[in-house]
Amino acid sequence: MAKPVPVSPLAPKSYPELPVIEGVRFATAEAGIRYKGRTDVMLALMDKGTQAAGVFTRSKCPSAPVDWCRAKLKGGKARALLVNSGNANAFTGKTGAKSTKQTADIAAKATGAPLGEIFLASTGVIGEPLDAGKFDGVMDDLVKNADPSGLLEAARAIMTTDTFPKVATAVAQIDGVDVIINGMAKGAGMIAPDMATMLSYVFTDAPIAAQALQAMLSKSVQGSFNAITVDSDTSTSDTLMLFATGTAAKRGAPRIADAADRRLAGFKRALDTVLLDLAHQVVRDGEGCRKFVEIVVEGAASAAAAKRIALSIANSPLVKTAIAGEDANWGRVVMAVGKAGEKADRDLLAIWFGGFRVAHKGLRDPGYDEQQVSAYMRGDKIDLRVDIGLGKGRATVWTCDLTKEYVAINGDYRS
Amino acid sequence: MAKPVPVSPLAPKSYPELPVIEGVRFATAEAGIRYKGRTDVMLALMDKGTQAAGVFTRSKCPSAPVDWCRAKLKGGKARALLVNSGNANAFTGKTGAKSTKQTADIAAKATGAPLGEIFLASTGVIGEPLDAGKFDGVMDDLVKNADPSGLLEAARAIMTTDTFPKVATAVAQIDGVDVIINGMAKGAGMIAPDMATMLSYVFTDAPIAAQALQAMLSKSVQGSFNAITVDSDTSTSDTLMLFATGTAAKRGAPRIADAADRRLAGFKRALDTVLLDLAHQVVRDGEGCRKFVEIVVEGAASAAAAKRIALSIANSPLVKTAIAGEDANWGRVVMAVGKAGEKADRDLLAIWFGGFRVAHKGLRDPGYDEQQVSAYMRGDKIDLRVDIGLGKGRATVWTCDLTKEYVAINGDYRS
Repeated sequence: MAKPVPVSPLAPKSYPELPVIEGVRFATAEAGIRYKGRTDVMLALMDKGTQAAGVFTRSKCPSAPVDWCRAKLKGGKARALLVNSGNANAFTGKTGAKSTKQTADIAAKATGAPLGEIFLASTGVIGEPLDAGKFDGVMDDLVKNADPSGLLEAARAIMTTDTFPKVATAVAQIDGVDVIINGMAKGAGMIAPDMATMLSYVFTDAPIAAQALQAMLSKSVQGSFNAITVDSDTSTSDTLMLFATGTAAKRGAPRIADAADRRLAGFKRALDTVLLDLAHQVVRDGEGCRKFVEIVVEGAASAAAAKRIALSIANSPLVKTAIAGEDANWGRVVMAVGKAGEKADRDLLAIWFGGFRVAHKGLRDPGYDEQQVSAYMRGDKIDLRVDIGLGKGRATVWTCDLTKEYVAINGDYRS
Repeated sequence: MAKPVPVSPLAPKSYPELPVIEGVRFATAEAGIRYKGRTDVMLALMDKGTQAAGVFTRSKCPSAPVDWCRAKLKGGKARALLVNSGNANAFTGKTGAKSTKQTADIAAKATGAPLGEIFLASTGVIGEPLDAGKFDGVMDDLVKNADPSGLLEAARAIMTTDTFPKVATAVAQIDGVDVIINGMAKGAGMIAPDMATMLSYVFTDAPIAAQALQAMLSKSVQGSFNAITVDSDTSTSDTLMLFATGTAAKRGAPRIADAADRRLAGFKRALDTVLLDLAHQVVRDGEGCRKFVEIVVEGAASAAAAKRIALSIANSPLVKTAIAGEDANWGRVVMAVGKAGEKADRDLLAIWFGGFRVAHKGLRDPGYDEQQVSAYMRGDKIDLRVDIGLGKGRATVWTCDLTKEYVAINGDYRS
C-alpha cells in the first residue's frame, strides 16, 4: 500500500457551501471493501422522474460498471447511484459483469428502484473480483440515512489516493428561476497504486429532459474533463454523469426538452463552470504535483489541431519535468509542438511563459529578462502560451508538473 | 548543467572490435562549442563515389541540419559528415540555416568535397545560435588526422548526456564476398538538459547504390529505431544515415542497384542486426533507467495495431513506474491496451511477464505464483507479452523503466 500522502499543495483552501438540491439524498458507509477505518461506499438516492446523462471512458477495455451504465443510460432515468472505492471491478471479465448485476440487485431491493434506473461505479484496484456481498451489509443503513446535505461526505467516500474531496457548485437562472448545480469528482491522475479512475457526478434541480442534458454534458466535457491530463494514461473507469431531479419546476422553472432552447444559456454557462472547477481540482490533486499549468495554443490550423498540440505539450515528460525544475525551457515546448504531427512552422512560432515572450519567429526572444522569467517559474500557477502563427485554431488544456513524487507514488508502493 | 552521471547499469560490458572499412576515415576535435575538456566535433571523410541514404525526424519543427541533409540527400552521394555536440542548432530560424550553410562551406573548403555531398548534424541545446566559426579553427586538423580506425572515438565525440558511446558491427556476404557494416549512435531519451537528439551513422564497404540503400534503410528502421521509446518525446534532430563506400568491389563484391536483389538477403539481415543493436543501446542508456523492457504484442487486428498498442504500453508512465517498482502490474497494462484506441476485448486478453502468465481471459490468472513473478521483476531485463486474442498482428518494441532519476536528470539541472 502507498504511504499516506499529505494534502496536495495545490488543493483549494476551503470548500464551498453546497446548497441542498431537492430530490437527491446522499449516504455513505464503511463496507470494508479494501480500506479500513474510512467510508468506501456512497449512495445517491434520487426522486422518481430524475433525468440522467453520462459520458464514459474511451478505453477499449472499460470496467464492468461502465458497461452497465452505458446500457442503462438508454432509458434516460435515474433513481439510485451506488459507488464504491477500493476496487475498480475492471478487467474482471464475466465475474465482474456478474458482480455488477448482483450489486444492482441488492440496490434495487433496498431502494425499490427499477434495475434500469440504477447506476454503478467502482474505483480502486484493477483485476480483483469485487465481492457484491459487501454491499448487502450496508445497503439498508445507506437508504435509511440518506440525507440531502451529504454531498461532501459522499465525495470523500469515493476517494482513493485523492488527497482532498472535490466539490463545486453554481446557481443559474432558467427563465428567471434559480436552479442549482452541485458536483463532485474524484481522481488524481491514473491514481496509485494500480488504481485507475476519474469519477464525477453532477446534480441539478433544473427540469431538463435527459436528451437535452446529454447534449449539454457531451459539449461541456470537451473544454473541461477532456482538456485535462496528469500523465496521459486513460482510465478504464472514467465516468461523468449529470442528474436532473426537476424539482425546480415547483418553483416555476419551465420544463425544457431541447438543448438548443435559449433559456438554457445561463444553465450551460453554470454547467461549464462546475465541470471546469471539478476538472481543475483533479489536476490540482495530480500525483506528486507542485504546479498547476495552463497551456493555451493559438494560431493553429484548426481548433482540433490546437488541442492536439496543447495535449502533446501537456503530456511531454520533458516539458513537465522542466516545469517541475522551474525552468522556462521553451526548447522542449518546440519539441512537443513538432512531435504533435500537426502543421507548424518553426519560423512562425512564438512562446510565452506568463507575460514573458521567450521565443519569437524561430529564435530565442532577445528582449526577455531571464531573471524575471525565473521568478515567474517559481510560482505554483504556470501559464504557457504558444502561438503557432498559421491560423485561428485555439485550445486550452490543463496539467501539472512531473516530479519525483509522481514516480515514488507510482513505483515505490511495494516497499 | 546536469551533474555528471555514472554509466548506465544497462551499458554493454565491452565494446566490439570494429574492423576497418576502406574508404572512410574518422577524426575528432575539441572545438569548445559548449563542453570543456572533451571532444565535441566528429568528421567522417568518405571516398569519392560513396553512396548515401538517410531517414530523419518526423517532427514538424526539425533542426536546421536536418533540413540541410534532407535537401542534399537527393544527390545520393556523400564525401563528408560533420557532427557537433553541445548545440543542436534547432529552433534557430534563418540564423540556424545560415550557420548550417557556413559550416558546410568551411567543411567544403577543408575537404575539397562539393557542398551537395556534405552532411551535417548538431546535437545539444535547442534555441542557441551555433557559431560556425568554431569549426574553422579545427577543420584542417580534422582532415589531416582522419583515420580509418577512429569510429569509437567519433561515437564518443557526439555524446551529450549519453553515459557510454554506442557502436555495433556485423559482417555479411554478398555473392560470397565479405562486406562490413559498422555503426555508431548517440541518444539517451530526449537527452537532458534541454537537449534533444538521436543520431546514428552506419558505414559499409558494400557496393550498393543509394536508391537500394535508402529502401533497405527505410525498412530496417521500422523494427529498430522506430520501435524504441524512452519517454515518448520525439527529437527535432533525429537522424539516421547509411553510407556505402563500395570498396568491397575491389574484393569481388558485385555492384547492386536494386534493393530487391536476392544477393542482398545477408546484407539486410546484418543491417537489421546493427540497427537493432544500436537502438537497444540507446534504450540501455535511457535517462535514469534500471531495466531494459521488451514488449511483444501479438494477436492484434493488424501489425500496425499491434505496434500502436505496444507503444501505448511502452509510453505509459504508470506501466514504466510500476516496472521501476518491480511490480508485475498487469492492471496498468490493461489500461494502456485500452487507451491505445485499437480493437481489444477485455475477455480475450492474456498478459505474461517473462514466462509467467499473470492474466488470462479477462481475469487474474489463478495459476500464477506471485513469488516467482516478483523474483523475475527484480531482474534488469523484463519481457512483457500481451496477446490481444483477436488476429495475427504482431509487433515488438523496447523501452526502459521510469525512475526518479529520470525526473532528476530532466528537472533538477538548474539546482
